[in-house]
Amino acid sequence: MSITPLVEYHDATEDVKEIYDDIMATRGSDWVNNFWKALAAQPELLRRTWQGVKSVMSDGALDSLTKEMIYIAVSATNSCDYCTNSHTAAARSKGMTDDMFAEVMAVVGMANQTNSLANGFQVEVDEQFKNGGRG
Amino acid sequence: MSITPLVEYHDATEDVKEIYDDIMATRGSDWVNNFWKALAAQPELLRRTWQGVKSVMSDGALDSLTKEMIYIAVSATNSCDYCTNSHTAAARSKGMTDDMFAEVMAVVGMANQTNSLANGFQVEVDEQFKNGGRG
Amino acid sequence: MSITPLVEYHDATEDVKEIYDDIMATRGSDWVNNFWKALAAQPELLRRTWQGVKSVMSDGALDSLTKEMIYIAVSATNSCDYCTNSHTAAARSKGMTDDMFAEVMAVVGMANQTNSLANGFQVEVDEQFKNGGRG
Amino acid sequence: MSITPLVEYHDATEDVKEIYDDIMATRGSDWVNNFWKALAAQPELLRRTWQGVKSVMSDGALDSLTKEMIYIAVSATNSCDYCTNSHTAAARSKGMTDDMFAEVMAVVGMANQTNSLANGFQVEVDEQFKNGGRG
Amino acid sequence: MSITPLVEYHDATEDVKEIYDDIMATRGSDWVNNFWKALAAQPELLRRTWQGVKSVMSDGALDSLTKEMIYIAVSATNSCDYCTNSHTAAARSKGMTDDMFAEVMAVVGMANQTNSLANGFQVEVDEQFKNGGRG
Amino acid sequence: MSITPLVEYHDATEDVKEIYDDIMATRGSDWVNNFWKALAAQPELLRRTWQGVKSVMSDGALDSLTKEMIYIAVSATNSCDYCTNSHTAAARSKGMTDDMFAEVMAVVGMANQTNSLANGFQVEVDEQFKNGGRG
Repeated sequence: MSITPLVEYHDATEDVKEIYDDIMATRGSDWVNNFWKALAAQPELLRRTWQGVKSVMSDGALDSLTKEMIYIAVSATNSCDYCTNSHTAAARSKGMTDDMFAEVMAVVGMANQTNSLANGFQVEVDEQFKNGGRG
Repeated sequence: MSITPLVEYHDATEDVKEIYDDIMATRGSDWVNNFWKALAAQPELLRRTWQGVKSVMSDGALDSLTKEMIYIAVSATNSCDYCTNSHTAAARSKGMTDDMFAEVMAVVGMANQTNSLANGFQVEVDEQFKNGGRG
Repeated sequence: MSITPLVEYHDATEDVKEIYDDIMATRGSDWVNNFWKALAAQPELLRRTWQGVKSVMSDGALDSLTKEMIYIAVSATNSCDYCTNSHTAAARSKGMTDDMFAEVMAVVGMANQTNSLANGFQVEVDEQFKNGGRG
Repeated sequence: MSITPLVEYHDATEDVKEIYDDIMATRGSDWVNNFWKALAAQPELLRRTWQGVKSVMSDGALDSLTKEMIYIAVSATNSCDYCTNSHTAAARSKGMTDDMFAEVMAVVGMANQTNSLANGFQVEVDEQFKNGGRG
Repeated sequence: MSITPLVEYHDATEDVKEIYDDIMATRGSDWVNNFWKALAAQPELLRRTWQGVKSVMSDGALDSLTKEMIYIAVSATNSCDYCTNSHTAAARSKGMTDDMFAEVMAVVGMANQTNSLANGFQVEVDEQFKNGGRG
Repeated sequence: MSITPLVEYHDATEDVKEIYDDIMATRGSDWVNNFWKALAAQPELLRRTWQGVKSVMSDGALDSLTKEMIYIAVSATNSCDYCTNSHTAAARSKGMTDDMFAEVMAVVGMANQTNSLANGFQVEVDEQFKNGGRG
């Protein structure tokens, strides 16, 4: 269930079927997950979101496994259960081991801890770090 | 400035100096950044936080550059200016190029977008994704 | 269930019954939702919160449907499942169509994406935008 | 300043100039704001983000002023200073009065309050609200 | 500066002056801080917010210093600079020592760390903890 | 269930058993909660996290009940269901009454409300509050 009805493949319009086909082809999979079925009541939202994800998550200057681990980090920080589960599954299918997952989580935990400390102490950015080290 | 006075090296107790020395030695650097100086009024908080960061951020199943990029992702999501600047500087010093940074940001933006969509549509986790793919 | 027992109408004190009556009268409804029943163990917290919601969510410079959609936007961003479901139901009862909901979500997704990008790139506010355009 | 250098119009590639031209034409404005200049070091990120914003923020089932107010609500919730200022300026230029802004803020404040209360009390979603009122 | 003009005492309407007087009397102070001056363009928002803060933050089952420390914890988590500074100042004026502040921060850091770990590992609530220990 | 298998006592390595024993001894309890069982697949992450929690949450300048209430405040703000339930249970076992819990929640709600208002109005920090009252 979800706030809008899930659109199953056999009920989908041709436009949506085409996107579903592209999702499955891109992933080498034979099913479409609920996230896309929830968006599909609004084909334009579905199309734009899928195009974005497809483009951003492919190999580039960073490999796609690294990208999935960054996705997990954001999702755990935002407490998005759906995204945490789906992107952990995706990362595992791309080779993330239990040790790698534990280290992602260790960094996520440490970052959330020090983020709140830096905000709580209102620490001023060092000259050397300004603009991410560009000075 | 910060909510507690920054403790400079020459004003530090021996305990704090030892930690400052370890921070600089670990990083091959000759200065200590404001975050640690803000924590140093409470040597136990400083010691525990530094031990955690040192342990978590070293090379392991993930290399330390990947860890820095995950740190940036969490910091941008939490809108922590200090942490975003300091860890971008750290990642750059470890070899992150402008293209890599842009891809980190593209993933962070996409993850924050789809996190809010999954929460807003209240999408139910697919059986296949439950427990991060463990079923 | 919830962290405090839910106070049902027939178990409520006169003070709480009066607030429940006002909630139902204001909404033209014959039941009280769990949120208020959870607060009711603390009549003062219940009273103050209800007075605030009643006052803020009525028609004013913005109509109450627009206000419900803003409420959804915040709730999806904070990943509050209860609030996302209850305020989507409220917005629908006030005339929000599926197309309107999809556009709310599209804006929420885009805003969460660009918020993290602006924070991640540490973009400085343009002179023209300072103080929300007051310069 | 920002974490990547801002790309000014006269230094931009033809691809980026074209997007800058589209931004200005769409907005009936003669300047480009820092957000886009920060993304422009990565033309693909710039292009995709602008296409998304342009498509999502135009009039549709919701008018563009309502969309700007939803954008403000998310940005204030995420404490994104850049986005709060830029979208408040945009909303004002589209007719948001001070009274309307105050009501946006009143709803944002109330939503953040009740979100934390619903999460803190762990209130269970009422049957009537499940799936946003779809039951 | 702020997104709406700050209303100074001598420019305020009688209604607003009365609230300003109550703020100063309640706090035993001879000035009004910017937060209230920013809300004052909307007297109703000012009045309701001040009544809420005044009521919630006074001594009750918890003393007002404990309440200020809880306020700091939320503000640091949300990265609200204004609130972190103003409520740290308030807590100090009520007797919070540097050691107490450091322990507030240590708990805040630890809570943010374990929150992200619990979300990232998708840990199921133990039977014993359900409904906050009510079973 | 969780993203990594829960490690039960009888399946645990000697290292992990030792930590489980310390958790139970510290708490005067005869069982270990799921959070630790989820971390236990990574003994180093388990050990470091437990050492931190044990050290931070014991009586110090603040008593441990006050610390638990601060933990609840952060957890409700982050919408971490696991942490909200487990730390409410812990606070209750240390003497938190229903009235005290209601006041924690009232402060959490008020803080989340005014945090978003201060961010939304972009209120500038008063000179008197700068650096948390250090000026």
